[in-house]
Amino acid sequence: MFQVTVLGSGASLPTLQRQTTAVAVQREGDLYLLDCGEGTQLQWRRAGLRFSKLRAICISHLHGDHVNGLVGLLQTLSLTGREERLEVIGPAGIAGLVDAARTHVGLRLAYPLEVRESSGGELIAADGYSLRCAPLDHGPPTLGFALAESARPGRFDVQEAERLGVPEGPLFGRLQRGETVVLPDGSEVQPREVLGEPRPGSSVAYCVDTRPCDGALGLARAADLFICDATFSEEMTLEARRRGHSTAREAAEMAMRAQARRLLLIHVSARYHDARPLLEEAAQVFSRVEVAHDLMEMQV
Amino acid sequence: MFQVTVLGSGASLPTLQRQTTAVAVQREGDLYLLDCGEGTQLQWRRAGLRFSKLRAICISHLHGDHVNGLVGLLQTLSLTGREERLEVIGPAGIAGLVDAARTHVGLRLAYPLEVRESSGGELIAADGYSLRCAPLDHGPPTLGFALAESARPGRFDVQEAERLGVPEGPLFGRLQRGETVVLPDGSEVQPREVLGEPRPGSSVAYCVDTRPCDGALGLARAADLFICDATFSEEMTLEARRRGHSTAREAAEMAMRAQARRLLLIHVSARYHDARPLLEEAAQVFSRVEVAHDLMEMQV
Repeated sequence: MFQVTVLGSGASLPTLQRQTTAVAVQREGDLYLLDCGEGTQLQWRRAGLRFSKLRAICISHLHGDHVNGLVGLLQTLSLTGREERLEVIGPAGIAGLVDAARTHVGLRLAYPLEVRESSGGELIAADGYSLRCAPLDHGPPTLGFALAESARPGRFDVQEAERLGVPEGPLFGRLQRGETVVLPDGSEVQPREVLGEPRPGSSVAYCVDTRPCDGALGLARAADLFICDATFSEEMTLEARRRGHSTAREAAEMAMRAQARRLLLIHVSARYHDARPLLEEAAQVFSRVEVAHDLMEMQV
Repeated sequence: MFQVTVLGSGASLPTLQRQTTAVAVQREGDLYLLDCGEGTQLQWRRAGLRFSKLRAICISHLHGDHVNGLVGLLQTLSLTGREERLEVIGPAGIAGLVDAARTHVGLRLAYPLEVRESSGGELIAADGYSLRCAPLDHGPPTLGFALAESARPGRFDVQEAERLGVPEGPLFGRLQRGETVVLPDGSEVQPREVLGEPRPGSSVAYCVDTRPCDGALGLARAADLFICDATFSEEMTLEARRRGHSTAREAAEMAMRAQARRLLLIHVSARYHDARPLLEEAAQVFSRVEVAHDLMEMQV
């Protein structure tokens, strides 16, 4: 299960209503920060998240509203005593940006920082889940991200196991772990005889900023939560195209095509003081939709 | 008269109690921003200040807590329609930082930006006031700033003018403007015969971050408000020396030596949840002292 916290839900400039888009995704002890605009570290504090749990910061692209808070957060982590390694992942150019901060604003860190540039693929394979990314269609090199739990084994059918003569005890566990077992009478029992279909884990996809594209669809495929760029409403489709964004309707169309379970509209332009029109527009296409707001929390 | 708004009053890392140190100083239609850490643009909104009045941004030095909000603010000004020229003033290196933002985070501005590097002296001579800077003692090149109103002419002594035979009317105005006038009987009256001593204008000095030094003393000389680095309390004097900061007591000693009128302690370390010890320490040396807090406003 993932715990998702929206730190900011706005577009290119932060306002008191919507700070720039950033999302924290937590699974057990691991926390990932997706994008880091100006002020994200204060939103992090407001949300009551713990800096010590941060495992990686994933930057979608090098526009200020997605990255202007990175250097300050890296410095704050150092000043608050971090010693563990931290990873910053982003598209081509992210390493140059961190180097520039060392040169121009005296960034000095007391912990090992690994900066990784990627253009797509698996980024982290952890115990029980993975993080991957794919290129989006925004203009500059841009990445979407997906966190997905590993599939869990199917349900163990205790009655069937007993019917086959498996004695309750350690053999149950071995079958659940996928091992074939030999019974006291010499007969074999295969895991598939007592286990149901593997159960898919939860998944969260984050595609900001982007036009509708295959990269986003791939990450959003069957996602339990698809967090998607919805900067504009439908009447500004031309502007969305020109600036490499999606409208609320386009986000909903992606969610439908990808067979996502829920859609969260984010990166809402400051022009929409009331975001209900975005919600209504998307809901005509895909009903399981919400508009993100700052400090919103969701379980996935 | 200057209107001073404290946008942030904290030291190296922003907290919900104290954001990083930044001060806005307004005089009639002109607004100056002194330092611009992460989140300053949102504090600006919280304070209800108007972006359109901003004339220059003065950066004391290139440590992140004084400059990490600059690029975002410059971009926001562009996105909110600024067309007027803006000046950014700072020590050596500020131009390189702005150039790096153009390279690394796609900074694009719709207004003319002039970036000026200075090591001291007069920066702006405006109608009725001036802005100057002086080098401080912090480590990296660091500037303190002072805004000072021009001296106003002395009080006009109406009784004396009448006694000298000056008829009420335009000749009063010419004397007040410093011109010698000729009376109908052919005699002359000099301005000094009817004007008191010139009256000094208000002044505000901002010296952050710094050890006690001549540059700070010069800016603070007879200042109506001296806003001074007071990162630490007295028992951390060694730490203050090591990091190029002042203690509250040292700030008070500077205020006393400079014969400032009021002292505002700022850049308070996050370790002081309760800043009263800093206040008490400074007040033993200089009684007209306050500790800054975020969104505090003062008339000077």
